[in-house]
Amino acid sequence: MKLIQSRDNAQFKHLRKLATSSRARRDEAATLIDGMHLFRSALDAGVRPRLAIVAQRALHLPEVSALLDGQGDAVLLLADTLFDELSPTNTPTGLLGLMDIPAPPDHPPVADCLVLDAVQDSGNLGTLLRAAWATGISDVLLTTGCAQAWSPRVLRAGQGAHFSLRIREHCDVASELRGYPGRIVATRLDATRSLFALDLRGPIAWLFGNEGAGLSPEVGALATDAIRIPMPGAAESLNVAMAATVCLFEQVRQRQPG
Amino acid sequence: MKLIQSRDNAQFKHLRKLATSSRARRDEAATLIDGMHLFRSALDAGVRPRLAIVAQRALHLPEVSALLDGQGDAVLLLADTLFDELSPTNTPTGLLGLMDIPAPPDHPPVADCLVLDAVQDSGNLGTLLRAAWATGISDVLLTTGCAQAWSPRVLRAGQGAHFSLRIREHCDVASELRGYPGRIVATRLDATRSLFALDLRGPIAWLFGNEGAGLSPEVGALATDAIRIPMPGAAESLNVAMAATVCLFEQVRQRQPG
Repeated sequence: MKLIQSRDNAQFKHLRKLATSSRARRDEAATLIDGMHLFRSALDAGVRPRLAIVAQRALHLPEVSALLDGQGDAVLLLADTLFDELSPTNTPTGLLGLMDIPAPPDHPPVADCLVLDAVQDSGNLGTLLRAAWATGISDVLLTTGCAQAWSPRVLRAGQGAHFSLRIREHCDVASELRGYPGRIVATRLDATRSLFALDLRGPIAWLFGNEGAGLSPEVGALATDAIRIPMPGAAESLNVAMAATVCLFEQVRQRQPG
Repeated sequence: MKLIQSRDNAQFKHLRKLATSSRARRDEAATLIDGMHLFRSALDAGVRPRLAIVAQRALHLPEVSALLDGQGDAVLLLADTLFDELSPTNTPTGLLGLMDIPAPPDHPPVADCLVLDAVQDSGNLGTLLRAAWATGISDVLLTTGCAQAWSPRVLRAGQGAHFSLRIREHCDVASELRGYPGRIVATRLDATRSLFALDLRGPIAWLFGNEGAGLSPEVGALATDAIRIPMPGAAESLNVAMAATVCLFEQVRQRQPG
């Protein structure tokens, strides 16, 4: 098993670039997944990291050994201090995976999908992916203004959601949704129709926008239906991830049998 | 207007203690609110900070001047570097308020309430308070294991929710809920009854637990009803703030007229 102890090692420099540069991740179509939970989630979803990167201090941990089964030679050992430079967390668990970012599907979505327009906060974006995952939505479309879906931070917030979703980044949403066979729904504070009054049993494309500015005019114009989320308390008090969670679970509710 | 430029100034040291020490905040029953948005939310809710603390660079901003109307002499000017030591954000806006933490109500809740048991993440806790606020729940009970509700970080994540809620920290939940006139509801992954099948029109005390461990046995034992949130996708994929958001908005839905 190869051990890297020098910050000047070319492979280490390459990994650090992937850890810190969204451009490097995009150019190479590869990213780092951080921690045993994500590594396990990837394996469970049938995604085998191209390389497992292990901190020296973690090599003896039984949980790490179990995850390395099946990696063959694709394991790299790093001195602890070097490892910690790659991890986006303050308390790194000692295991990272280098994985290929899956190619996006080459056909537009025809079932439920979540469209995210310039969602910039990594935590929000990860939470939105989790909400899609939990509610059985498989297709996610992101505009160019969004945070990078496959960044280590968003992966972390997504808690494994990424591996079960079809994620399309840098989407031309108008073109992707041309001919979409269901409703295209936007939430607006000034809409008159309540979320709870809209029939959500057919395919829905959900539009959610930037944390401050909401939907861009171009994406907003694609909506076939505008709804508001009834709030007996203060208006404007939900963030985008909470608003999406409410909508997606109302869709789940309406589709329950009986 | 008094200007502090020295890190050794006693009043500055006192403020730094409030910024960084939950014990100091608790002992003094006071906290710092950070930024213009929170300051404005406090004023809108009728809470006047005991002292406004302004960075020199921000004094000329029209929005700051507007917020300082009515503060009278209760304004303290700080050198920019000193101010930035007090702010929990990376990009401080230049305005802080020193406010008294409101005394908790001296009677147990009789209407809807949110019970949080050892919720430790500040972002989650703030989001939970926001969800209560949005859905018109006024009473929040926290056990001793929770993050401090009035810490600057939780205040920030709460986005103003605090000022409209009755927050009880360090609660003996069993004693607070003795004689509670409605259902006491816990979410459990293994519960057989669906959230959507439970009648939520009467008063509900919602129980939510720690991010990893869930509800403690003592708090969980208080539940009169256990429900699960139906998830067509992956189970265990919601965090506590999302789970609570789903439950509280289902309550809103069931109470809509018609």
